[in-house]
Amino acid sequence: MPVAAIALTAGEPAGIGPDLCLQLASEPCAHERVVIADPNLLAERAALLGLQVSISPFDPGRPPRAQAAGELSVLPVRLAAPCHPGKLDPANGRYVLETLRLAGEGCMRGHFAAIVTAPVHKGVINEAGVPFSGHTEFFAELTGTEQVVMMLACPGLRVALATTHLPLRAVADAITPALLERVLRILQHDLQTKFGIRQPRILVCGLNPHAGEDGHLGREELDIIIPLLMRLRSEGMDLVGPLPADTLFTPKHLQSADAVLAMYHDQGLPVLKHKGFGQAVNITLGLPIIRTSVDHGTALDLAASGRADVGSLRVALHTASEMLAARTQA
Amino acid sequence: MPVAAIALTAGEPAGIGPDLCLQLASEPCAHERVVIADPNLLAERAALLGLQVSISPFDPGRPPRAQAAGELSVLPVRLAAPCHPGKLDPANGRYVLETLRLAGEGCMRGHFAAIVTAPVHKGVINEAGVPFSGHTEFFAELTGTEQVVMMLACPGLRVALATTHLPLRAVADAITPALLERVLRILQHDLQTKFGIRQPRILVCGLNPHAGEDGHLGREELDIIIPLLMRLRSEGMDLVGPLPADTLFTPKHLQSADAVLAMYHDQGLPVLKHKGFGQAVNITLGLPIIRTSVDHGTALDLAASGRADVGSLRVALHTASEMLAARTQA
Repeated sequence: MPVAAIALTAGEPAGIGPDLCLQLASEPCAHERVVIADPNLLAERAALLGLQVSISPFDPGRPPRAQAAGELSVLPVRLAAPCHPGKLDPANGRYVLETLRLAGEGCMRGHFAAIVTAPVHKGVINEAGVPFSGHTEFFAELTGTEQVVMMLACPGLRVALATTHLPLRAVADAITPALLERVLRILQHDLQTKFGIRQPRILVCGLNPHAGEDGHLGREELDIIIPLLMRLRSEGMDLVGPLPADTLFTPKHLQSADAVLAMYHDQGLPVLKHKGFGQAVNITLGLPIIRTSVDHGTALDLAASGRADVGSLRVALHTASEMLAARTQA
Repeated sequence: MPVAAIALTAGEPAGIGPDLCLQLASEPCAHERVVIADPNLLAERAALLGLQVSISPFDPGRPPRAQAAGELSVLPVRLAAPCHPGKLDPANGRYVLETLRLAGEGCMRGHFAAIVTAPVHKGVINEAGVPFSGHTEFFAELTGTEQVVMMLACPGLRVALATTHLPLRAVADAITPALLERVLRILQHDLQTKFGIRQPRILVCGLNPHAGEDGHLGREELDIIIPLLMRLRSEGMDLVGPLPADTLFTPKHLQSADAVLAMYHDQGLPVLKHKGFGQAVNITLGLPIIRTSVDHGTALDLAASGRADVGSLRVALHTASEMLAARTQA
């Protein structure tokens, strides 16, 4: 696989994002990691953490190069106000968005092959007067993508969500044939083109407990999910279910599956984050670019402490690299 | 701990219940296992499975005695029709209920110290013309109990449910302060009296994703759950939450917890059954008796095959035994 430049947005400056980027530099990398952040912030944080990192400016005109341990590239964005670890400052809200914009546009222009994102803090960006509901929505808008799909993965399990950040009482009405069809097509397409799985097998959860138990515990399986799965199967998609979510996550079902589609957030993510603790990655499907992310927040209390766990960012970078390889082969 | 007699209902005769009781007999037991079933069914099934089991009639007038490997006691109930493994027959629906009734009444009279149940098939009992919605409801009615709580447990995790077998769209409205208070009091009481935990720490899930994110993803946490938890904490209960369900099931939170209260079925059970695969037990809290159960169904296709996994029934018996010991000490 050719060496690529991968954008690494350091996220909220007062959180652990800068720490994680610097900690990740202690390992060599087959690609060029380009941190998008304020170089002074990185230098200060490295000093606080006692880390020796050699940071070179990123040059999009030069071929990307693999990095030794201790090396990072940087695409500089200046903070608007000095950053104190652990202390949010709305003055730096637009700085965070600028790092994301540069990552997205760099990817569209071909300077970056993928984006890996460290955590941002939605609240402080909104306080800065900018409407922002998350990375996923930001990159969808930037790339003109109507529908994206959130998928979390850890070694041995991938869970995609049909609905994401909805109040529980709004979930049942949001599960429509049109939504499920769009989500399943994106999931199948991206498993094929970004993960190199020729004929993905997808396990689909029911919406209701026991997948509705033949209509005794809810009718959405009979009225919506089963007819849609039958139609998509007739096109050749390998869809299993709807299965009861409580027994789906056992070896009998998982051993032959490439991904699980959960109907809502807390049906699929507790088991994924339990199984994948410290090893889980968030992947946005449906975008024209490759984007992976940590599965955790800014952990303000751990910034500059040296106690942040780099596991999820490591897996996010590794997953982006695997997706690049799969796409190259496709 | 004194030796006790524990009732073991063999459940649906055409399913794996009889197999599991016989397979369990291959291990010695510190208590007297009293299978409530048709002795001829047990003898036939043992022959089909090639198991040597010595089955003696249960005598409630005699002190219970520990059992060696290969020994079981039996409290006989006659089948109404011959049983063919794997073939449901409504003619035997009332037989199944009679085994449960004898177990419950024997427990109330002090003949049994606990009940462990193998799986039944609700559908075939209803086809027999008897309304029946499950073991839990049956024993609640038999013992005059208004509110019970379903809890599943496996090594290292206990998950109780605030609501159980409801369509997903009905869950949010079912979460009321009165319900949550009843459930939490039963959970606390039974962890103390049946599990010997003096001051149980209970982690409480939010209803909405991210536990509502300060009202942005639903208001039930702010309006219902948080005020109730504050009130119960002021009485001295050790309640943590409401926590986001997707991050709750990680070591940081679980390591200091005695149980988790999930708001609904598919929020708590996928992770429990994933973690506890083949080792999970279903416990009914709130009853005046000790009742544990397997966490799986009748598996008709495995009846008499020798391939049924006895793991869950073994853990159910073991858990009942532990609960007896804890109650003795309380």
